[in-house]
Amino acid sequence: MQVAETVLDLAEALIACPSVTPAAGLVFDCLEAQLAPLGFAVHRAVTGEAPDGPVENLFAIRQGPPGSRHFAFAGHVDVVPPGEGWTSAPFAPERRGDLLHGRGAVDMKGAIAAMVAAVRDIPTDAGTLSFIITGDEEGPAKYGTVALIEHMRSVGAIPDLCLVGEPTSSARLGDVMKIGRRGSVNIWIDVEGTQGHVAYPHLADNPAPKLVALLAELDALVLDEGTDWFQASNLEITQIAIDNPATNVIPAKASARVSIRFNDLHTGEGLAARVAEIAARHDGTTRAVISGEAFLTLPGEFSRLVSEAIEVETSLVPEASTSGGTSDARFLRALCPVIEFGLSNATMHKRDEAVAIADLEVLARIYRRVADAALGD
Amino acid sequence: MQVAETVLDLAEALIACPSVTPAAGLVFDCLEAQLAPLGFAVHRAVTGEAPDGPVENLFAIRQGPPGSRHFAFAGHVDVVPPGEGWTSAPFAPERRGDLLHGRGAVDMKGAIAAMVAAVRDIPTDAGTLSFIITGDEEGPAKYGTVALIEHMRSVGAIPDLCLVGEPTSSARLGDVMKIGRRGSVNIWIDVEGTQGHVAYPHLADNPAPKLVALLAELDALVLDEGTDWFQASNLEITQIAIDNPATNVIPAKASARVSIRFNDLHTGEGLAARVAEIAARHDGTTRAVISGEAFLTLPGEFSRLVSEAIEVETSLVPEASTSGGTSDARFLRALCPVIEFGLSNATMHKRDEAVAIADLEVLARIYRRVADAALGD
Ligand SMILES: [Zn+2]
Ligand SMILES: [Zn+2]
Repeated sequence: MQVAETVLDLAEALIACPSVTPAAGLVFDCLEAQLAPLGFAVHRAVTGEAPDGPVENLFAIRQGPPGSRHFAFAGHVDVVPPGEGWTSAPFAPERRGDLLHGRGAVDMKGAIAAMVAAVRDIPTDAGTLSFIITGDEEGPAKYGTVALIEHMRSVGAIPDLCLVGEPTSSARLGDVMKIGRRGSVNIWIDVEGTQGHVAYPHLADNPAPKLVALLAELDALVLDEGTDWFQASNLEITQIAIDNPATNVIPAKASARVSIRFNDLHTGEGLAARVAEIAARHDGTTRAVISGEAFLTLPGEFSRLVSEAIEVETSLVPEASTSGGTSDARFLRALCPVIEFGLSNATMHKRDEAVAIADLEVLARIYRRVADAALGD
Repeated sequence: MQVAETVLDLAEALIACPSVTPAAGLVFDCLEAQLAPLGFAVHRAVTGEAPDGPVENLFAIRQGPPGSRHFAFAGHVDVVPPGEGWTSAPFAPERRGDLLHGRGAVDMKGAIAAMVAAVRDIPTDAGTLSFIITGDEEGPAKYGTVALIEHMRSVGAIPDLCLVGEPTSSARLGDVMKIGRRGSVNIWIDVEGTQGHVAYPHLADNPAPKLVALLAELDALVLDEGTDWFQASNLEITQIAIDNPATNVIPAKASARVSIRFNDLHTGEGLAARVAEIAARHDGTTRAVISGEAFLTLPGEFSRLVSEAIEVETSLVPEASTSGGTSDARFLRALCPVIEFGLSNATMHKRDEAVAIADLEVLARIYRRVADAALGD
């Protein structure tokens, strides 16, 4: 394809490439076609195996002078499935009034278009710029940004600062940025008993009351009261299962799953151990999967420069939030300080996802200011 | 078929008719062929519709002199599925040593054979005798003994006493009879909440902790301490379900099922109301299905005559038990006092179900004594 003239053109071009997670092929072709002419060396790779792969990723870098700073934009080109009931076709971008409609408009093809527009006029000698773009952020994310980081380490391309373009804005573009995210751990709990007939409970060992007591204890846990930067950690019971169609049978096994979103007072391992200990007291066993640790880019130079860029363009001082779900920042934090800032998230993951066309232009200017400041302009 | 010469012959003939619940046709033909020559008027009817029907039942009656007493034997010719791994074919009765093997040997074709043998030599002028035989005791039992009772009421054939031939004996034939059974009620519980994302619990309303608290309260209930004749009533949590594959989703609904086996201090309705009241306090709703109310044939004349018949033939004084699951006695109690007595239940519902051949003869003699005494001999 041709190089897009405007951020709107590019956003439309990206939306027009169907890329339900995991994304591959076309949407990366489109992005590569924009970045290559700007002098970026584009590395694309497909990694991983079923069930969580294969996944395509793209790392593009334009080297600045030796010793110059390295600033990275990060994001994803995959989108969640559109679902039913759209007013216009989800992968046929459509301008209606002030809005551009299409799946990924805010999460986050619009932001990626703004990133590309932002770097277009940055001179090469300003510093090193890179794009860390995955095709699997909305999916299992096992072979997504994790694989990109591995590649970056292997080629020694470690940024000094990284901005993730997730749609962090809420009511208006610029009102919220994210300086951290809570961590996330899911824990599967099993309590084994002995099956039997309800008429002879003394010959059986019903695991259900044990699981109930165990879950009541977990539900009563107060993990913390929150911190200066984080809300309180929270545990939710997300599933309970006893597979037992027979009304007269005492079941042999009872299971549950809990999800903990935790701030930087905790680690996934520590919480998993704590739940395991409680479970053990009720004859339960556990298996924990840590989706990501909590991270916090303490307010300082980086948050200040992002905030200033936003304020100049929007007259808003963004709230430095740490709320919400996880993002790929949970991986990128291992490389360098990470902040997230992007479009308004009102329609993300929803039917008729749409972005204000004017916001695309403003976001591109904000990103330009962030890049300039991050490179030490 | 020919009239069976012995109780063993008849037990074999009945076992040889495959009759996994619901039973129909052949096994009833076999039984009818034995009873008709003994002067019984045999009524067979098929009632009910899917899913719990149709079901075949048999009521056979031999009228005694006007004003004479009426004694009924009750039982079922359906059997539970044999399952895998039998040493001999489950519906090919096989004598091995002292045992007769086959599905239904103890539950309860052996007992039905003993009933028929018991009445063979009772003179007609001794009183009225009847057989209340269903093809659906092991299944839903919706159109089984219930339909038989309806028929009996419609023809005015109400027995004075009824003996159910369930395998009540435990270690030895004669050690246990049942003078009552606990009632049974199953209660389905639903707690509705509001679905949401685990990262935004304040926007959701997780039904899981409510269900957990509700179940903890139910589990802590002490319904009673038992009575002179009954063990304590008991509640078991038999199922819990939250249908929620997504680890990051707070579920919209949580469900559970409890099973209560209760003695004659309670009614199914009363317990259902009590659970509903507790559930309501935790935002839960309930649906109760009463399988049967508790019944008790208070120790007295009937239990004494059964006990004496057993003692004469076995030298054992049977325990007057009320333990175990439900039986069709829960329906028959509406007609007259009911006691259950039958073969040893060690192999009932199991692979390689078998009866001691000698026990068949002894049981036939016990049943004869019971019938004689019940008719006022
Ligand atoms: Zn996103
Ligand atoms: Zn039975």
